[in-house]
Amino acid sequence: MSAASSGLLRLFRRCPPADLSPYRHFIVADRHVGWVDPDFARLLAEFPAVFYLTDRTVHLHDRLEQIEDRSKAVADVLARLHERGHVPGWRGELYPVNRRFGEAPLLLMERAATPLFGLQTYGINVNGLVRDGNGWRIWIARRAMTKHVDPGMLDLIVGGGVPHGISLADNLLKECAEEAGIGPTLAERAQPAGLTTMIVAAHEGLRVGVQFNYDLELPADFQPRNDDGEVSEFQLWSLSQLEESLRTRDDFMFDAALAKLDLLVRLGVVGPEDPDYLDLIAQLRRPAAFVRT
Amino acid sequence: MSAASSGLLRLFRRCPPADLSPYRHFIVADRHVGWVDPDFARLLAEFPAVFYLTDRTVHLHDRLEQIEDRSKAVADVLARLHERGHVPGWRGELYPVNRRFGEAPLLLMERAATPLFGLQTYGINVNGLVRDGNGWRIWIARRAMTKHVDPGMLDLIVGGGVPHGISLADNLLKECAEEAGIGPTLAERAQPAGLTTMIVAAHEGLRVGVQFNYDLELPADFQPRNDDGEVSEFQLWSLSQLEESLRTRDDFMFDAALAKLDLLVRLGVVGPEDPDYLDLIAQLRRPAAFVRT
Repeated sequence: MSAASSGLLRLFRRCPPADLSPYRHFIVADRHVGWVDPDFARLLAEFPAVFYLTDRTVHLHDRLEQIEDRSKAVADVLARLHERGHVPGWRGELYPVNRRFGEAPLLLMERAATPLFGLQTYGINVNGLVRDGNGWRIWIARRAMTKHVDPGMLDLIVGGGVPHGISLADNLLKECAEEAGIGPTLAERAQPAGLTTMIVAAHEGLRVGVQFNYDLELPADFQPRNDDGEVSEFQLWSLSQLEESLRTRDDFMFDAALAKLDLLVRLGVVGPEDPDYLDLIAQLRRPAAFVRT
Repeated sequence: MSAASSGLLRLFRRCPPADLSPYRHFIVADRHVGWVDPDFARLLAEFPAVFYLTDRTVHLHDRLEQIEDRSKAVADVLARLHERGHVPGWRGELYPVNRRFGEAPLLLMERAATPLFGLQTYGINVNGLVRDGNGWRIWIARRAMTKHVDPGMLDLIVGGGVPHGISLADNLLKECAEEAGIGPTLAERAQPAGLTTMIVAAHEGLRVGVQFNYDLELPADFQPRNDDGEVSEFQLWSLSQLEESLRTRDDFMFDAALAKLDLLVRLGVVGPEDPDYLDLIAQLRRPAAFVRT
């Protein structure tokens, strides 16, 4: 393990996979859709008309049969817990709660609460690539110091969670425009390239994430431009600069680091000569929580 | 599930992940390196100077302390079992037995026996790609009817197991030359692009495989040529033809199908609009048996 201490596996030591054993299963309509930690479960137990608990589970009450009833009842509970400071970072965005991506949601829930319920959430990442001889250079963004999560850290030039009611494709166009000034004609050229997953215990709760990764070739004269104030600067890096940064520093947000490492594996910049190659690839796509395997 | 029955997941219904529960752990020098099925374990129990068994394990005898002693003792047992018809398809190639790729082997074992011990084996796959406008066409090989495994099925143009004593890079050059007439100057341009894994119960035993996948751009006028008699024909396909074949037919060897599906995911031909996208990607890289996770 000593040889790997300056290697790429350090990324996963910073954010190790969560131990799920202390969490209670969150059950909606007989479906296991998330994990609730014991402290938050105790708060939910104060609302027995909405949640009931067993030793190992937190159930949404079965009398709530429709998506509208469920969403309304949960929203009321979350609003009261938010007032008491238990749901920080309120976003005003609704996320779908379901067991498989694309299925009709069982309820909709405020984004800030999704890690408290350990819900699987979905996001998009776009690698902004510029041709450089036979290889590529890549645009990197630095997050504004005003961001709620990970201020000042390095990030993708385009990325974001996918809320309810918007397709991946439309979300990609929206985020490309807002975050990097990439218009729809260019953004539509983005190619899906697979996904990365994470199950990480963070200060805001359990992050169970599936990130759909896209590659987008940008013209050499394109300059990204941020319109929503979330980015402080853009830099155009070589892939070896990216690898060196991932290998030696903790500058990247974890989900961005996953997407970047996946890119370096796909492009062969990180290859089987790396002694941790198998372990790295296993970590890039930890078994997503709610896939059939 | 009915909507998926004509989808790409059918690949994995044909070769579902193995249920490992009936297998005994194969232990060498206190390390779990494989799985032995109960019938084969009974045969090994006839050789108590080499193997000893418990209810749940098959141990290589601890008195065999050096790689040479272990390899020799196991080879003698396998030769006797081969004479009795229990090790079909003898290859005369030695594979390394270890717990992690690249580690010094604990012993060397005849290739044909590796599925009987459920050893993790390693192979290379090369996707032979030809530029076609903004996209790609791909060379496909049909296996000779004389092949021991999967005669007549569709395959990669270059692929093979990695025996002891040859690096991945040298094995790639060797297989490129032998299987498709690709010289070293061209073959050296192959780019690693990740890996696919499988744990499948096959008629020859338990196949625990890690395949290192490479992409190789070939000139438009290049014509693959097979020199070892293992290929009956080569065809140049469009990627949509490849997708259609994987989606509707069982023409490809399973490991080749995995590599091809991985390619289609990386190139965005199969994207998140496929309702099985998450499940497909989870199946492409089932947790390899012997990685740290």
